[in-house]
Amino acid sequence: MSHQWRERNRPLRLERRYEFQDYSALRDFLDRAADLSEQEGYYPDMGFGRDYVNFTIHVNEGENALGDNQHRLAQQLDTLAEAIAH
Amino acid sequence: MSHQWRERNRPLRLERRYEFQDYSALRDFLDRAADLSEQEGYYPDMGFGRDYVNFTIHVNEGENALGDNQHRLAQQLDTLAEAIAH
Repeated sequence: MSHQWRERNRPLRLERRYEFQDYSALRDFLDRAADLSEQEGYYPDMGFGRDYVNFTIHVNEGENALGDNQHRLAQQLDTLAEAIAH
Repeated sequence: MSHQWRERNRPLRLERRYEFQDYSALRDFLDRAADLSEQEGYYPDMGFGRDYVNFTIHVNEGENALGDNQHRLAQQLDTLAEAIAH
């Protein structure tokens, strides 16, 4: 997994910020991230403004560790962002 | 302006949460809100998950009061949300 994701506590979660120069690239990324959410049935919190998108991927309810699903989603988001940036 | 917007301080801002039963309605709302942002040249912070969207409309840099532009944007977002919910 990218070292740009940070694991944080209380509550346990993964966080990453992506930055974009261009609002249309940012919107394209958000659309694809929302498609991915629907496909995976897993909805991270996303926050964005003009030039950034923040993701927060929470641990599953009732679990006390981040699992493969969360790390896989983080990896997929990196792949999407990479595809848009190049 | 809708009473559901709250004015908060430090920093001065307007905030409102909208809730949606349906992720596709939520995405439709986000798309239209992003269109509105581009049209107005004004980019509020938006945060969302599966069933909610939070907006934060900040005061313009260098100003110490919320102005007509911020209140108008809040009203336009209410109108968009209303159009999607019905």
